[in-house]
Amino acid sequence: MAGKKVLIVYAHQEPRSFNGSLKKVAVEELSKQGCAITVSDLYAMDFEPRATRKDVIDRDLHLPVVIKTEEVMCGAQHLIGALSNPKFFNYGVEAYEAFKKRSLASDITDEQKKVQEADLVIFQFPLYWFSVPAILKGWMDRVLCQGFAFDIPGFYDSGFLKISFAPEIASEEERKAMVASWAQRLKTIWEEEPIDCTPAWYFGH
Amino acid sequence: MAGKKVLIVYAHQEPRSFNGSLKKVAVEELSKQGCAITVSDLYAMDFEPRATRKDVIDRDLHLPVVIKTEEVMCGAQHLIGALSNPKFFNYGVEAYEAFKKRSLASDITDEQKKVQEADLVIFQFPLYWFSVPAILKGWMDRVLCQGFAFDIPGFYDSGFLKISFAPEIASEEERKAMVASWAQRLKTIWEEEPIDCTPAWYFGH
Repeated sequence: MAGKKVLIVYAHQEPRSFNGSLKKVAVEELSKQGCAITVSDLYAMDFEPRATRKDVIDRDLHLPVVIKTEEVMCGAQHLIGALSNPKFFNYGVEAYEAFKKRSLASDITDEQKKVQEADLVIFQFPLYWFSVPAILKGWMDRVLCQGFAFDIPGFYDSGFLKISFAPEIASEEERKAMVASWAQRLKTIWEEEPIDCTPAWYFGH
Repeated sequence: MAGKKVLIVYAHQEPRSFNGSLKKVAVEELSKQGCAITVSDLYAMDFEPRATRKDVIDRDLHLPVVIKTEEVMCGAQHLIGALSNPKFFNYGVEAYEAFKKRSLASDITDEQKKVQEADLVIFQFPLYWFSVPAILKGWMDRVLCQGFAFDIPGFYDSGFLKISFAPEIASEEERKAMVASWAQRLKTIWEEEPIDCTPAWYFGH
């Protein structure tokens, strides 16, 4: 639908894979419709999946204070941010506080911005052990933090998780049919009812 | 049970957390029983969750050939290994081939060795989005590769996944009861029937 914004969160290492084809066809079909498409290519971004203390940074510091860690520093240096409880690290609590204070690491806030702007989010991934690959699970763990994912009304309502099943045991012809059927579905995707992902029992005591 | 080997795969950032307590009590109780215990403390190890081309290394190279990546090199340098199909990267296929050729990255083979030697594997983790944290999912994705996890008879039979539920909404007293009940269960853990994780329909066409 013209003018709509779509975020594709894509988790495959190989552009020529079946997943790569499904991503490509989505970009093509949705572009034809006049949508603006953003792809988060997680492996290409080397997206960090681990939920750690490094996710809380200090945006107000003027002098870079390098976080002290025992491991070798990797990639961009982080500015250490104060924890709400330095004596007992609770990732969920610290991420929530950091979200409110705007002191989450920028790789998280960049993704949150993409999600917030999107009218539709598509997750494109292969099944690893009956679930999403770790790199995508890390995107979910870190990006969909309290304050962001739990508070925005309608966030869940843009959910859209159905994917083609078992391309590895399908014939070439069946795969082509799956890609074509995905392209077909994308034509009328804006008419679909959103998946309801917020049954009350998820959060009941 | 005296002489048994136990591997605890532990995924929490904070030693004083409820998960940390459950891990501690398991180490204590199983030690009392005379078991040999190994803990894989994934956050402390900064365990890599991403399934990438870097997992295939070359153990035979005498001169270090640093893998070329666009990102900044991090930690130990890898020796690049030949892929079975360099033109089309399929992680599952490459990991399987690398397993057979003994050219998987050492952080993977170290964990496989621990699993292979263990009589019991305990996964200790908090729920993140109704599943394991990404760092533990990455352990599963990378360590439990084809050739290793699918071929060792009895591997699944040592599965043991039941954990305490929702410590965050429990009272302090209830938490203590959960820890005590876990300690109690560990006393007779060797009498339990293993969880059957290999129903035929998982792998049927």
